[in-house]
Amino acid sequence: MPKSTRSKEEIYFMVLNAILKMEIAKGHLKWTLSDISRESKVTRSLIYYYFGKEKKAVLATAYQYLVERFYSLDKPNPLPLRQRLSNILKDLKEMPYLILLFYSAKGEDSEFGRIIRKKETEFLKGLQKEFPHLSETQILEVYLMELGAMLYHLPPTKTKDLFELHLGPVKK
Amino acid sequence: MPKSTRSKEEIYFMVLNAILKMEIAKGHLKWTLSDISRESKVTRSLIYYYFGKEKKAVLATAYQYLVERFYSLDKPNPLPLRQRLSNILKDLKEMPYLILLFYSAKGEDSEFGRIIRKKETEFLKGLQKEFPHLSETQILEVYLMELGAMLYHLPPTKTKDLFELHLGPVKK
Repeated sequence: MPKSTRSKEEIYFMVLNAILKMEIAKGHLKWTLSDISRESKVTRSLIYYYFGKEKKAVLATAYQYLVERFYSLDKPNPLPLRQRLSNILKDLKEMPYLILLFYSAKGEDSEFGRIIRKKETEFLKGLQKEFPHLSETQILEVYLMELGAMLYHLPPTKTKDLFELHLGPVKK
Repeated sequence: MPKSTRSKEEIYFMVLNAILKMEIAKGHLKWTLSDISRESKVTRSLIYYYFGKEKKAVLATAYQYLVERFYSLDKPNPLPLRQRLSNILKDLKEMPYLILLFYSAKGEDSEFGRIIRKKETEFLKGLQKEFPHLSETQILEVYLMELGAMLYHLPPTKTKDLFELHLGPVKK
């Protein structure tokens, strides 16, 4: 049922972005589920249904989902790098606050900060396996270009031009 | 007088970061100079002295300073790229909210968004002049790696390892 799947995803994204925004604007867990409902324009009953009733658990669900999605760990067969980045850039249009929270959390000794740093290490190891011809610094550069593309608001279609020095031209 | 210069810069940074934080947390110009004073722990009289008494003018001064500094346009003789990036990474430790506001503003049709996009275009043209052997896409990649390094919280000393495929190894 593609339609119902999509609308679940849309609701998810709206709620997630509202959670991220409240975490940034009001501070860690200093928001209520009513704030999230008002900000996301999703009813509280739907938020309860998808994320639970307790805000600490809601936040944990949100983080878990976001990190898996951000590092494309939710897909069994990873797409080519440029396509993965393009997908993330599309996601970010729906959830701009993800980048803000990523940046804040990355520098902090918080639970989410630790999750990000752990998944990031796994992700870099995965990239190294995927591109064994690249040095460790070059792997980091690929990741930095991906992060930069997010901060820059690179249009998703532009990713096909990137990484040529690192990965060679796009294979048709 | 290096000491007095530094303390002016420290005050500047503390106030700037508070302005950026309030712009993100409370919304565009929805803060007061008392908020800035409380958040930055700088007295209102010092804020008046350095930034003015009217918050719209304070914000304009802040943006102007930040953009010039971010794109190293305040320096008459630009340093080598890796050194410039290292300096920005040091600045960001004092002003983490700069990245958050950069990201928010970049995607918006606001005054600051327009300033950023204009300065960014100038900056990319400057990079192209500085590195004429690079293609337009490769110039963008260098910029994306710089932005990525900021989002990643790359330690400032690490910049010397980057850009080897684009710029060649560091010259001693």
